[in-house]
Amino acid sequence: MKIYEFNGFPNPARVRIALAEKNALDKVSFISIDVPNGEHRQAAYLAKNPSGTVPALELDDGTVISECTAITEFIDHTFEGPTLTGQNPKERAVIHMMQRRGETRLLDAVGAFFHHATPGLGPAIETYQNADWGIKQKEVALAGMHYFDHELGAQSFIAGESFSMADITVFAGLGFADFAKIEVPASCVNLIAWRERISQRPSVAG
Amino acid sequence: MKIYEFNGFPNPARVRIALAEKNALDKVSFISIDVPNGEHRQAAYLAKNPSGTVPALELDDGTVISECTAITEFIDHTFEGPTLTGQNPKERAVIHMMQRRGETRLLDAVGAFFHHATPGLGPAIETYQNADWGIKQKEVALAGMHYFDHELGAQSFIAGESFSMADITVFAGLGFADFAKIEVPASCVNLIAWRERISQRPSVAG
Repeated sequence: MKIYEFNGFPNPARVRIALAEKNALDKVSFISIDVPNGEHRQAAYLAKNPSGTVPALELDDGTVISECTAITEFIDHTFEGPTLTGQNPKERAVIHMMQRRGETRLLDAVGAFFHHATPGLGPAIETYQNADWGIKQKEVALAGMHYFDHELGAQSFIAGESFSMADITVFAGLGFADFAKIEVPASCVNLIAWRERISQRPSVAG
Repeated sequence: MKIYEFNGFPNPARVRIALAEKNALDKVSFISIDVPNGEHRQAAYLAKNPSGTVPALELDDGTVISECTAITEFIDHTFEGPTLTGQNPKERAVIHMMQRRGETRLLDAVGAFFHHATPGLGPAIETYQNADWGIKQKEVALAGMHYFDHELGAQSFIAGESFSMADITVFAGLGFADFAKIEVPASCVNLIAWRERISQRPSVAG
């Protein structure tokens, strides 16, 4: 299996953490796509992944899987180790709900701020910018931080008492927020403490 | 189990179709939330579902699940019947990938057009509108229609040769497009034929 990515970017980081949680980083080969120079928008990559996003997982039969939730479902059901997506209907539902909230309320909101309200990846890549939308999404991201902080006041992890893919998503979202210079409010003490705990996991600390 | 919804709206329709595919519509009670009059933004509903969205599934233990993918995961793993989310890692990955594309490239894009570039649900509900964003998302939705049309030239359903939750999402997206007056391009012959087939399924035709 191959993973097309750009190491250090938030979404590729999610897949690397998921693989590390499964002790499976050595089961895939990583192929770097030069996103800052637009390689993800060129025909060769679009033929593999018409979404033009990284990461993408290419299976040995040539099937290409994009979208982090989909890739994580594959990883979780392929490799041994603690579940990242839940083991019964209720766990699965709660984890998928929080995964989606981690995206819409944090990671994707930060991404929209970065790509629309800052220079982002530069004019050659950012061919449509809507600054007002980006600024609104920064508000969404900050509200999301307060939401997750509140949830973490009553539970140990984003989707309950076990680590899951939703923790990976929110953790990557905070990393992206650092990069985009959206500061975590100091009042988010539960979120900040959770982030410190997550950063010490072997899958993250390396 | 209870489902909070507003019957006829696109996301509630997704959950009703998923339940009908599992022959489980009579296993839940439906509670109407008056979305056009803003009941989903009021404290009583936000206490149940802080996302303020419909549909939401309330389990017998009081757990509330929002987000259609999460609700569909619960339904699919709780009730008998053909799988909607896949039975092996590759199927699960492809279905989740196409589910996400059905949202970002069609249903959510149509929603953004409706809520931002038309009067939407009216000024009391649409407290932030960004018309330029909405118009851009209409372009995304039209490109999405061409993308799914292309995929359906080579396969019978959105995620391959079996019906899945991704078909439900794209079907609901087209229904929302009708409502928002985004016309399916006549050149999308595969998409139009697929839609006709889906509309004849008992879960949809009723």
